[in-house]
Amino acid sequence: MKVAIIGVTGYSGLELIRLLSQHPEVEIQSLHSQSMINHKISDIYPHLKNSCELMIKEIDSEVIMNETDLVFLGTPSGVSATLGQPFIEANFPLIDLSGDFRLKTEGAYEKWYGKASAPLESIHQAEYGLAEERQQPQVKLIANPGCYATGALLSLAPLVKEELVQEDSLIIDGKSGLSGAGKVPSPSSHAVSVMENMTVYKMNQHQHTPEILQQLQQWNSEIEAIQFTTSLIPVTRGILLTIYAKAKKEVSETELFNLFETYYQEKPFVRIQPIGMYPDLKQVQGSNYCDIGLAYNPGTRLITIVCTLDNLVKGAAGQAIQNLNIMWGFPEEMGLLNSPVFP
Amino acid sequence: MKVAIIGVTGYSGLELIRLLSQHPEVEIQSLHSQSMINHKISDIYPHLKNSCELMIKEIDSEVIMNETDLVFLGTPSGVSATLGQPFIEANFPLIDLSGDFRLKTEGAYEKWYGKASAPLESIHQAEYGLAEERQQPQVKLIANPGCYATGALLSLAPLVKEELVQEDSLIIDGKSGLSGAGKVPSPSSHAVSVMENMTVYKMNQHQHTPEILQQLQQWNSEIEAIQFTTSLIPVTRGILLTIYAKAKKEVSETELFNLFETYYQEKPFVRIQPIGMYPDLKQVQGSNYCDIGLAYNPGTRLITIVCTLDNLVKGAAGQAIQNLNIMWGFPEEMGLLNSPVFP
Amino acid sequence: MKVAIIGVTGYSGLELIRLLSQHPEVEIQSLHSQSMINHKISDIYPHLKNSCELMIKEIDSEVIMNETDLVFLGTPSGVSATLGQPFIEANFPLIDLSGDFRLKTEGAYEKWYGKASAPLESIHQAEYGLAEERQQPQVKLIANPGCYATGALLSLAPLVKEELVQEDSLIIDGKSGLSGAGKVPSPSSHAVSVMENMTVYKMNQHQHTPEILQQLQQWNSEIEAIQFTTSLIPVTRGILLTIYAKAKKEVSETELFNLFETYYQEKPFVRIQPIGMYPDLKQVQGSNYCDIGLAYNPGTRLITIVCTLDNLVKGAAGQAIQNLNIMWGFPEEMGLLNSPVFP
Amino acid sequence: MKVAIIGVTGYSGLELIRLLSQHPEVEIQSLHSQSMINHKISDIYPHLKNSCELMIKEIDSEVIMNETDLVFLGTPSGVSATLGQPFIEANFPLIDLSGDFRLKTEGAYEKWYGKASAPLESIHQAEYGLAEERQQPQVKLIANPGCYATGALLSLAPLVKEELVQEDSLIIDGKSGLSGAGKVPSPSSHAVSVMENMTVYKMNQHQHTPEILQQLQQWNSEIEAIQFTTSLIPVTRGILLTIYAKAKKEVSETELFNLFETYYQEKPFVRIQPIGMYPDLKQVQGSNYCDIGLAYNPGTRLITIVCTLDNLVKGAAGQAIQNLNIMWGFPEEMGLLNSPVFP
Repeated sequence: MKVAIIGVTGYSGLELIRLLSQHPEVEIQSLHSQSMINHKISDIYPHLKNSCELMIKEIDSEVIMNETDLVFLGTPSGVSATLGQPFIEANFPLIDLSGDFRLKTEGAYEKWYGKASAPLESIHQAEYGLAEERQQPQVKLIANPGCYATGALLSLAPLVKEELVQEDSLIIDGKSGLSGAGKVPSPSSHAVSVMENMTVYKMNQHQHTPEILQQLQQWNSEIEAIQFTTSLIPVTRGILLTIYAKAKKEVSETELFNLFETYYQEKPFVRIQPIGMYPDLKQVQGSNYCDIGLAYNPGTRLITIVCTLDNLVKGAAGQAIQNLNIMWGFPEEMGLLNSPVFP
Repeated sequence: MKVAIIGVTGYSGLELIRLLSQHPEVEIQSLHSQSMINHKISDIYPHLKNSCELMIKEIDSEVIMNETDLVFLGTPSGVSATLGQPFIEANFPLIDLSGDFRLKTEGAYEKWYGKASAPLESIHQAEYGLAEERQQPQVKLIANPGCYATGALLSLAPLVKEELVQEDSLIIDGKSGLSGAGKVPSPSSHAVSVMENMTVYKMNQHQHTPEILQQLQQWNSEIEAIQFTTSLIPVTRGILLTIYAKAKKEVSETELFNLFETYYQEKPFVRIQPIGMYPDLKQVQGSNYCDIGLAYNPGTRLITIVCTLDNLVKGAAGQAIQNLNIMWGFPEEMGLLNSPVFP
Repeated sequence: MKVAIIGVTGYSGLELIRLLSQHPEVEIQSLHSQSMINHKISDIYPHLKNSCELMIKEIDSEVIMNETDLVFLGTPSGVSATLGQPFIEANFPLIDLSGDFRLKTEGAYEKWYGKASAPLESIHQAEYGLAEERQQPQVKLIANPGCYATGALLSLAPLVKEELVQEDSLIIDGKSGLSGAGKVPSPSSHAVSVMENMTVYKMNQHQHTPEILQQLQQWNSEIEAIQFTTSLIPVTRGILLTIYAKAKKEVSETELFNLFETYYQEKPFVRIQPIGMYPDLKQVQGSNYCDIGLAYNPGTRLITIVCTLDNLVKGAAGQAIQNLNIMWGFPEEMGLLNSPVFP
Repeated sequence: MKVAIIGVTGYSGLELIRLLSQHPEVEIQSLHSQSMINHKISDIYPHLKNSCELMIKEIDSEVIMNETDLVFLGTPSGVSATLGQPFIEANFPLIDLSGDFRLKTEGAYEKWYGKASAPLESIHQAEYGLAEERQQPQVKLIANPGCYATGALLSLAPLVKEELVQEDSLIIDGKSGLSGAGKVPSPSSHAVSVMENMTVYKMNQHQHTPEILQQLQQWNSEIEAIQFTTSLIPVTRGILLTIYAKAKKEVSETELFNLFETYYQEKPFVRIQPIGMYPDLKQVQGSNYCDIGLAYNPGTRLITIVCTLDNLVKGAAGQAIQNLNIMWGFPEEMGLLNSPVFP
């Protein structure tokens, strides 16, 4: 199977290269970008020398569709909508890592992203690619989820579907490393602003809010709003979510553990931690795992879920490959069971 | 005015040296420790060469009371109770930075610290030294608060006293740098475990929980429990607390801002951020400031308070000196208004 | 082909697990340690859950030799000498990652490691496993080189063999991340000592000095001593060496580049940077690459070589697998050409 | 005494504010910048709230000369030359922190900075402000040295003046934190490029090269060139220099120690470490100290000097205040003896 990657100079595109080079059934046929055309990717990114020596090509959808079986879009929100259109019209397999095909409600994209939306018709062809919850493996257009959204939804799915938590009590306190903010230099991504610091940003305004809420509401239509706090911590890769929800009735940590263990027993990438243990970033970095720890506070009746994942793998390129596996009928975990890079 | 510092080889003791050297009315008379006696402090800690050249002496309470006017205890919990006893019995001015004199309820210390308590009689002589809330400036024994507790209580005081938030809704999500965990090497403080990582520890089991609850209950006796999550982030100094509380009725961010501005208008070290801005660690490191930002989410009716402070200054040595100023009748901010070390 | 790993709870042992899981021809048969016997490795190191679920077994050399084809020793210096002896006596394939079989000169090990040496007879059976320079692929006992030594020797080999540099002018200024210092907690590995810091340690006393000198002297017997400075920088993985050598006669950067390119043209893991570019740590982390950049200063006639590698991969587990490939007749790069983990 | 600071929004300008607020004899009269005029500095930099509430004013040299006694220029190279001109013409006391008045040789500035030079007449009025070596305290125009140059020159002064080292053997291997590179965002200052990384930049091309050489040649005219390697390490503040020089004849570490101790015995900010100890960044951060450790390798006859200082204090604002003290006849150390911020 041959694939093309469009938008290969960003962190997600580079991570697709790294991960696909381990996949036994997929070959990267070509790399594409709007800039740096006719440069070898390893001349721009010397870490790739000897590992990937492909030339960056212009984006010609006809050629790509002739030469490959599937295309990944690693382009930013706003760009994917335009670049993806010829593939969508041809019903060519497409996995988009941006936010452009995630929001089904008219006007939501414009509100949260501040840009013109992709055609609603295209959006409605897309399946939201939260891999563990996908129901239409035959769909050709995948809107790969945001990194925070992946963690938040995998953490809340069992509780919300079972209606164990009060619908107006959901708090998502997310912390992200800097690679989640992309590679464009800015005052807030300057090393002097980041090291020895922690900063809160986009309080209740993060663009992953609507996709989290949209999915939660499919599971329980009584959920009307969430609290979503986002912070930057001085790490490169990884997000840690601390999620709070008020239990409708008393519950024990053993019951919580059993609920999650059972819910995810067939899902190789969701690892439930033993009672009293909480995942850290080091145990997921470089891998497609999403690790979840659970606590219950009888005094406040609050359930706390701690969730970690690598934003560039399970939160982007890894889950995109997982979605490829689902689409192509490969085992879901093919090429993705490598160990995290520890320490 | 002359002071002695007992327990000078830990981070808090060292910070007392740094800060007191800027105080116009206080002179460090002597340094004391249970180890490293007869060594110059600057031989052990070369950063102090030329800045502080005192010798470490043994702990002789008689000599200390003869030669100085006040003693700081920078010793760990469990040690302060013993070392402080002769000073307390003599009603000699003492400011203790450990947890040993904070918990008024019988059995609380044993439960949360796992050790024998100081005599209850001594504990009851102590005032809890949350400087902005102190009411008995004449008290001679100060139980200087914990770093998390300082931030949590300054963040919640206006809301709880005004009964604006639901008593069963308080969530404190605290993140701390590594200096908060002390200098003893352990697997969890190893640089390889810390850098590029974030870890949750002591979920609902942190020893600052009871002192937070004890103070909150004095302000509103209907508060029965809190959720208190604590995490380590890869920074040296500073804590950031994200605190959630459900409003009893609708409130605006302007009302919140005005409430806090008014409440703290006479307090030089509590700085309320403009609406829409949240404090980071860099803006408080090295200083005695406690910075607070406020948000309101109408969808969930949640108030979010973001609070930062330097755990070694406002969370330890700085607040201890603030308490000295209050005790001695100096202006509260004397020697403490230096700028944070930025960047 | 089946292998056993002894000493699996240290960083090198864990890295062997990570890398061997990608090797198409090698299967990890068993894990061994002197501690934590009968625990699943993934219970101790949760990052390995679902990736490696083997139980840690006791070290029974008979069983290991019956069940496997080769054994890796990831144990510390001083331990390997003892544990390796039964395998060596049986001429069983053994790759040791410690310093125990590297130093051929009587007394050198005792002087630099401060411990009793392995039997000299065993040491003389070993080949020093600098993979790019190996000459006896049939040897069964490999003394895998130290991380600093690997970088220093690959950087100096072309210059020293060609006798281009003054023999008394070699300066190696090495900087290492903390994983190079092992996992045992100590004051110098405490995160508070490491973050925002850089420290010089073991000035001219690092235990890799004699193995560097021993190899250099095989190439040019006139080299009598080197300057070797070692420092810790606040990173987890990676070493950067800045190496200075005085040219015997004028040379250009183009000549240097061509010399190195030619010398390493058949070596997939040594990547020479274009003129004017110097490697950083990010371009090698997680991979088996050793990257080299070159400069020439006509004013001082100094050649500067900048070299980076991942101390746990090319500096330990990766090179050990490379040595396995050589010993077993596999292509040298088999299972090791994965891309660095960038960013 | 009243001063003005021009160029107050950069790191050096901010550090002048922090340090001058501790100076007992100096008052900051006004802050000036080419941007952000009429904004309170504490609105732009919230860490300054309550510590410095001055408004940023436009740069009117007449007003400044009327209202103050001395002006600091914290502006970048190329800007200082222009802004400083009216003050220089009026012989008004001026301390410039840029490189604009350091290089006495015609053409040197253009070559190394790639810009038009300040008038040579102005440059020749300036004294190079390496405070420990100043000889003309009455001079009104000070060219404050670069951070690397300060460390390199203080490290080499005793050796070069005594002609103990070979003139063609000087190697300066400098490592700097990111604040040394200024606050302008760029790909190389992006946190993702910096954290967990170390990068070599400007090999033998750093603009501090000519000022180091110019000063060395005043001490020993036989020095024709130096090797100067510069690297970025993932810290905010601090530089560490490892300097190598070949001894003309055998020397002992004791002799070296005694030489430096004697040379700097009257200099409060240069602290020589005991034999066998080397300074780290933590022991100088936030302070005006420059710490020096010494080693001798008899095998190679190399002297190694390890030097650390805070680039924003001794390498910029602190030394500028030291120069003010010298100019005004205050004790050199006035307002500058505060302890480093440790840990």
